[in-house]
Amino acid sequence: MSAASQALRTAKHYGRELSVVVLERGAWTSYSACGIPYWVAGDVDSADRLIARTPEQHRANGIDLRMGVEATEIDLGARVIQVRDTANGATRPVPYDQLVVATGSLPIRPDLPGAFADGIHGLQTLDDGKALLDTLTSSRRLERAVVVGAGYIGIEVAEACQRRGLATTVVDMASQPMTTLDPDMGALVRDEMEKLGIDLRTDTAVEGFEVGDDGWVSGVVTADETLPADVVVLGIGVRPNTRLARDAGLPTGATGGLQTDRRQAVVGHDGVWAAGDCVESFHRVSERPVVIALGTHANKQGRVLGVNLAGGYDTFPGVVGTAITKVHDLEIARTGLAVDEARDAGFDVAVGSVESTTTSGYMPGASLMTVKVVAERGSARMLGAQIVGAGPGSAKRIDACALAVWNEMRADELAMADLSYAPPFSPVWDPVQIAGRRAADAARRG
Amino acid sequence: MSAASQALRTAKHYGRELSVVVLERGAWTSYSACGIPYWVAGDVDSADRLIARTPEQHRANGIDLRMGVEATEIDLGARVIQVRDTANGATRPVPYDQLVVATGSLPIRPDLPGAFADGIHGLQTLDDGKALLDTLTSSRRLERAVVVGAGYIGIEVAEACQRRGLATTVVDMASQPMTTLDPDMGALVRDEMEKLGIDLRTDTAVEGFEVGDDGWVSGVVTADETLPADVVVLGIGVRPNTRLARDAGLPTGATGGLQTDRRQAVVGHDGVWAAGDCVESFHRVSERPVVIALGTHANKQGRVLGVNLAGGYDTFPGVVGTAITKVHDLEIARTGLAVDEARDAGFDVAVGSVESTTTSGYMPGASLMTVKVVAERGSARMLGAQIVGAGPGSAKRIDACALAVWNEMRADELAMADLSYAPPFSPVWDPVQIAGRRAADAARRG
Repeated sequence: MSAASQALRTAKHYGRELSVVVLERGAWTSYSACGIPYWVAGDVDSADRLIARTPEQHRANGIDLRMGVEATEIDLGARVIQVRDTANGATRPVPYDQLVVATGSLPIRPDLPGAFADGIHGLQTLDDGKALLDTLTSSRRLERAVVVGAGYIGIEVAEACQRRGLATTVVDMASQPMTTLDPDMGALVRDEMEKLGIDLRTDTAVEGFEVGDDGWVSGVVTADETLPADVVVLGIGVRPNTRLARDAGLPTGATGGLQTDRRQAVVGHDGVWAAGDCVESFHRVSERPVVIALGTHANKQGRVLGVNLAGGYDTFPGVVGTAITKVHDLEIARTGLAVDEARDAGFDVAVGSVESTTTSGYMPGASLMTVKVVAERGSARMLGAQIVGAGPGSAKRIDACALAVWNEMRADELAMADLSYAPPFSPVWDPVQIAGRRAADAARRG
Repeated sequence: MSAASQALRTAKHYGRELSVVVLERGAWTSYSACGIPYWVAGDVDSADRLIARTPEQHRANGIDLRMGVEATEIDLGARVIQVRDTANGATRPVPYDQLVVATGSLPIRPDLPGAFADGIHGLQTLDDGKALLDTLTSSRRLERAVVVGAGYIGIEVAEACQRRGLATTVVDMASQPMTTLDPDMGALVRDEMEKLGIDLRTDTAVEGFEVGDDGWVSGVVTADETLPADVVVLGIGVRPNTRLARDAGLPTGATGGLQTDRRQAVVGHDGVWAAGDCVESFHRVSERPVVIALGTHANKQGRVLGVNLAGGYDTFPGVVGTAITKVHDLEIARTGLAVDEARDAGFDVAVGSVESTTTSGYMPGASLMTVKVVAERGSARMLGAQIVGAGPGSAKRIDACALAVWNEMRADELAMADLSYAPPFSPVWDPVQIAGRRAADAARRG
């Protein structure tokens, strides 16, 4: 919808005619998927609040928005899409001059016994959120929740379940929660989850689900034991939803995402565009394509796409892998490359870490935060940073690190940069600057 | 003390002998001057908490620290300082090989009738803070405070007085509080001060002070009226304390600050160094020297100086004018050049502003914040940014803007950069990105 809206704005700006048809299989438009865990937790009181723009609002803006219809086939040569009405199954062709593929991502569902039992929920769409909330607030007696996956969504929904009074276990194959962090930083997240009373089982693969006679899940089977469960939430990630596009012959990369250029034009196919969770993006540090399913990238790419489709010129400059979340009061953020990612990309690295305070140490409310900076050995170029700390004010500092990485600053240049200082906001050396200094010192040693 | 400590560390690193003598007129070392208003307000319970390192700690680190002695004359040719013992007035010579001038700044005291009456306080040193606290907590009946100056210190101390139950008036010659902000942003600060019940009188010059028979201040005289006052605090800024250095022949610029190179070496004088509030710094956007009295710059310059003095190599890369403060719950920050400053520096400018929320709008605790970006007309290069908003989480975003300015990013590149997004931390487009986009659009129009 971001692309559609921007295309109309740009066409209007240039005084061009443009007719925009949008095909949507589901019942919702323009909602915040990232907000769903907070709706489930009760922080947000209704799904309506997550909806940025309703179908009616989009139509009032001049978009021919067709809901409850599914694109089943694209004929790139004839420039025609086969569209099935999900209500009655009737299919009819919709011609186009230019095509936008914004099919998003699909949640990964493990191919395991019992995986489709009642009481097992994904958490990608508003409908998923509603189904989970219906379960959590039903008259069914629920005591134990098991969350599969200790990534962003898994951790957020585990906190939501715990806050709703369920004894909550989180299971993950990896040896730490939040594998986008280095192990030492992930350990801080583990501590906070355990402090919350969440039972975290790492190095634990799920082998199946136990299902009761009524078809409702009753347990999560691992190699060691069966964890009793009255409700299960799957938070094991998403993958680009590209079947339709690949069937039509559009190119995907090793990441599974559609390949576009910086204007969001699909490579090798004039008049075909793509944006959002279904595409791969350029990572400015690893210089490799990556798929990062995140609303802010989708929005930005959609805007760029809309400008270009309507005859303007704009480019998406790529990503540096910035992400942020929280567990209870613990704020968590990262940007750039973690140590292993940097090595995979061919960098030799050095790190610097510090535990410092969010404000001057003598101020009321000073909270502990840990910052880790990853720098290139020798040059001390900023490759990445990670922050785990008590809020408020820890994690959003990642933006300064993200721009340091973005601009290929040296870690010691970050340490000397003119960041803001006053006692209620920072120690006299901001923690990210101390970590930057230490990383630079380490990068230049030996 | 930052320079002294770093010089010893660097000398040790290189295995060099170095003897460091520090001459301090007062009774304190290494304290947070920026923390004094929070001590006066009662947020910090004792002066001890503001002291980062005591004289004893410095001496334990190997510094020959001499307190209560004042340097009265420097003979650059003979490399000798005349040092007066403030206790007994005896003066004796102290020879040196290398000299560091770190004489800081002096508060501006208006040359007006009554300016030295009892009950009129400055607020630069710990002793000033103690004197003001003694007044505020004395048995003397205090009902009205007048603060002269509506800059950072003036606003912070006005809030402190108001919170201590005094009816507080702030007087400033300028037409707005916080003249480092553009008028539209300054107006938001005015609103918050008035909401706090502070009586703010702008466009009001102080002409003198009324003094009672007991020698205690009783009023602040302006062109229009005499404002009754039981206590007065002067917060009208500081100037570099360079008399001693100038008398010795060291060069100062039009700013009044000592002139150094990027290694903090005083221009034209081998073996003479200077850092902190007494020097001028290079402003990376205006490309002019500026004097900015701020602990974080002083610390960084001191570190650079210490490395160089002891035979290493480090440089201070200059400033972009970042500053941050708060009034009650309103957070205030700025970086780079404000509109008038940019024009003075020869830039043609365009601006973009937005009122948005600190978090996604649907999250509990979402607070309003206003961001303004100043960009160069045509190129859309980031020249500056200002943030005024409810906390927590508004003002520290200035660091992302500061690094955008620092790296000469375009405002539209900031808008597309990979800043962190999750509902508890930001809308899907961070407010600084929306303001950046608008500034870039304005910069390219016409």
